[in-house]
Amino acid sequence: MAKFEPIVPEFEYLFHPQSIAVVGISSDKNRFARGRWLLDSLLSARFPGRIYLVGSKVGEYAGLPIYPSVKDIPDRLDYVIVAIPAAATLQLARDVADKGARVLHLFTSGFSELGGEAEKQMEKQLVDIVRTRGMRLLGPNCMGIYYPAGHLAFFEDVSSTPGHFGLLSQSGGNGIKAIRLGPRRGLFFSKAVSYGNAADINETELLNYFTADPETDVIGMYIEGTRDGQRCAAAIKKAAEKKPLIVYKGGNTEIGRSATLSHTGSLAGSGVVWSGLFKQAGAIEVDDMDEMIDLAMLFTYIVPLTRANTAIIGVGGGANVMVAEFWSRAGLAVPRFPLDIREKLKAIFISEAGFSLRNPTDIVPLVREPILTRTINTVTGWENIDYVLIHFAIGITTEPVRTYMKQDMETLVELPESVRRRVMVLIYEAISPDDRYLAGELENICHRVGLPVFHSAAGAALALSRYVRYNQRLSDC
Amino acid sequence: MAKFEPIVPEFEYLFHPQSIAVVGISSDKNRFARGRWLLDSLLSARFPGRIYLVGSKVGEYAGLPIYPSVKDIPDRLDYVIVAIPAAATLQLARDVADKGARVLHLFTSGFSELGGEAEKQMEKQLVDIVRTRGMRLLGPNCMGIYYPAGHLAFFEDVSSTPGHFGLLSQSGGNGIKAIRLGPRRGLFFSKAVSYGNAADINETELLNYFTADPETDVIGMYIEGTRDGQRCAAAIKKAAEKKPLIVYKGGNTEIGRSATLSHTGSLAGSGVVWSGLFKQAGAIEVDDMDEMIDLAMLFTYIVPLTRANTAIIGVGGGANVMVAEFWSRAGLAVPRFPLDIREKLKAIFISEAGFSLRNPTDIVPLVREPILTRTINTVTGWENIDYVLIHFAIGITTEPVRTYMKQDMETLVELPESVRRRVMVLIYEAISPDDRYLAGELENICHRVGLPVFHSAAGAALALSRYVRYNQRLSDC
Repeated sequence: MAKFEPIVPEFEYLFHPQSIAVVGISSDKNRFARGRWLLDSLLSARFPGRIYLVGSKVGEYAGLPIYPSVKDIPDRLDYVIVAIPAAATLQLARDVADKGARVLHLFTSGFSELGGEAEKQMEKQLVDIVRTRGMRLLGPNCMGIYYPAGHLAFFEDVSSTPGHFGLLSQSGGNGIKAIRLGPRRGLFFSKAVSYGNAADINETELLNYFTADPETDVIGMYIEGTRDGQRCAAAIKKAAEKKPLIVYKGGNTEIGRSATLSHTGSLAGSGVVWSGLFKQAGAIEVDDMDEMIDLAMLFTYIVPLTRANTAIIGVGGGANVMVAEFWSRAGLAVPRFPLDIREKLKAIFISEAGFSLRNPTDIVPLVREPILTRTINTVTGWENIDYVLIHFAIGITTEPVRTYMKQDMETLVELPESVRRRVMVLIYEAISPDDRYLAGELENICHRVGLPVFHSAAGAALALSRYVRYNQRLSDC
Repeated sequence: MAKFEPIVPEFEYLFHPQSIAVVGISSDKNRFARGRWLLDSLLSARFPGRIYLVGSKVGEYAGLPIYPSVKDIPDRLDYVIVAIPAAATLQLARDVADKGARVLHLFTSGFSELGGEAEKQMEKQLVDIVRTRGMRLLGPNCMGIYYPAGHLAFFEDVSSTPGHFGLLSQSGGNGIKAIRLGPRRGLFFSKAVSYGNAADINETELLNYFTADPETDVIGMYIEGTRDGQRCAAAIKKAAEKKPLIVYKGGNTEIGRSATLSHTGSLAGSGVVWSGLFKQAGAIEVDDMDEMIDLAMLFTYIVPLTRANTAIIGVGGGANVMVAEFWSRAGLAVPRFPLDIREKLKAIFISEAGFSLRNPTDIVPLVREPILTRTINTVTGWENIDYVLIHFAIGITTEPVRTYMKQDMETLVELPESVRRRVMVLIYEAISPDDRYLAGELENICHRVGLPVFHSAAGAALALSRYVRYNQRLSDC
């Protein structure tokens, strides 16, 4: 094996292949072939480059011919996606190298993650082949690349809107969740990489890439372990210095550690060590992907302040109590409005019974003219309010409140930017299919207006408290 | 005012009216008349008794004539729902009394909850009229009664399946959420009462009723305050002695207290006092309605044990790590399977790469024969496992896994009851409309099989830890 010195590569080529081959395709649609998942994702994303298919049975899929071997493909290959059994990957790697490809991406699992000696050995051999032949290996056991600007994806029907959130995820499932759920809530991606076992391309290199990437403003990372704690720690420090870095470390509890099955390095096991590292580096640790999305949305949309006095405005007295209590438990203030603000609100609301104007503020969009925008402008006019949370518990409302609320939210586009960048929207309690349809419509309005959408009061409160603490830390430096 | 001595009434008549009048109905469908909400709910629930409508404009709604006054209704009235402005309710109350009605239910708000002296006075006058005329007042400012067995409801299209969970809720919104969301997850209601300001019928009387009610096995209570702390405390103690009592106390934080706007009694304000009372009484305090539903489901479906060693079985490695870590953080054990159990699992799973058989156990229903039932029977065969969590993160899966998972879950009906009563199902990460449709199908399967459905890993873990602590406390007594 040639001595391999890890460097920080310019990984741009990962995201800009001209030609892709997918190995492990069957023309039999009833047969489950894992390669089809990634192929369908590419087709759904309208990848504009050349796509080639390889399968054991010659035939056709989606109008594309299936070649018996990569060797038969009459073109140069840049990027090869592999979904064939592990045992067959070594020969394939050699064949792919002969085609001059730069990236071998193994969706295939059954390597070191199984913990067996034979599988570990096979993974090592694979890495040897790849490195000596000038390729890089992504995976094994991963979903690969989501790059909306380049029409690359690892799930069907995901957003094609580019954004500025970059994600590296050791888990494919967590990656899928993020790229599916994030854009529905307003978090759009520069790129996401699911990197699995990290046999070759690893978290350190990817993190360095995202740190340097001009398309990425905020970095998210789901990591289970590392094989080189020191380099990884250095990359985390550098990343967090340059950009907000949000980390979800899987396997920090004893049970979770067993579940990650990652026996890969000195740092891997100790949650305390990892947490200390994140804290010292200025990275923000979260406990699941929802929390990561929540926080990334704030970095994307909301003006960074060091105080979070919040005006809570929403439909339903019980809902207002509940939201206010989550705010309180997260250590955030909901200051009561002074008389002059309440008088101004009374004029907007035409003083109907049942409204509380104190903060939280009950809003019932019954009147047929929009009141939300005026209400927000009024409460942010008080210097003691930093942020505004609009919340709408869809499932506990009925018509015509729903229709009026929708009309009302459309007018939020009139908010001045300085105000808009203080507003968070919580859309929740969508219970029935009708509720969820309305939730989707309201989310679309928020995207058009440029407002972040939250799905949980507890999540929004936790994210805001973390955001403010992060801003305080920055301002202390 | 006649001296009124609160007694514990036999409230059965609340749930068995023969005739109902809804006051505040307009024939103009474009006009928002709040009474229509509750009328539509009754019609949707197919209330089998006689329904009469009252509105300021004569006309017709849903084929029913609109009378100008309750006095014009040519029938005795048992139960009158009122949705007209507060100022008009005093005269109405007298008219209703003349009709011999027993219950006046005020959906109308604008009374003591506004905090003003005039409104408080009006509420008092209303109570005077009601009490001197032999009626009882429900509300004001509340949604009233949900009683599936009697076809009474306060929201459209809610479940008509009777169950054994009884809820009293001071908040209408929290009541609506519970009766809409609970049945989707498998929690069916004996009855629910939204009681609002509790000017007459109050939390103490209702709690005493639910304690005595043979249709109710588990009691849930959302309460913001009381006007008689001692009686309320006694009722809580008695209830918790007889049945599991789950309490969500709104307004325990300072912000929340301001939000509840309830300045109603000595006990009302202090969260610490309330929490101490609940603890001493053996009631279980929760922090929102989701937590209440989670816990009520366990009391309904799951065998009460004093230990919660759990087998976690689900699709997706990252998802398994996440679920296991929530279990761990809640102080619950996920013991690793011994070799003989793993060997048995290997035989079921036909040993495909990518499966972890240690616990958590990766399940990928790829093989075309059901494996879930055999897996559950195998792991519960180990004496070190008390409970089983099946989890399915819908949004991170694709076909044919979804179809196979559905087929597989259908076979859970074959579980012996002793095993079934240890199984919880977590269906989550439903992101797209398709995901949610599948979630609905899986939930229906769970209802047929008799399994509780959870929507959040954190929620399921928290509920199970509370459940086991409750069982431990009982066994210590």
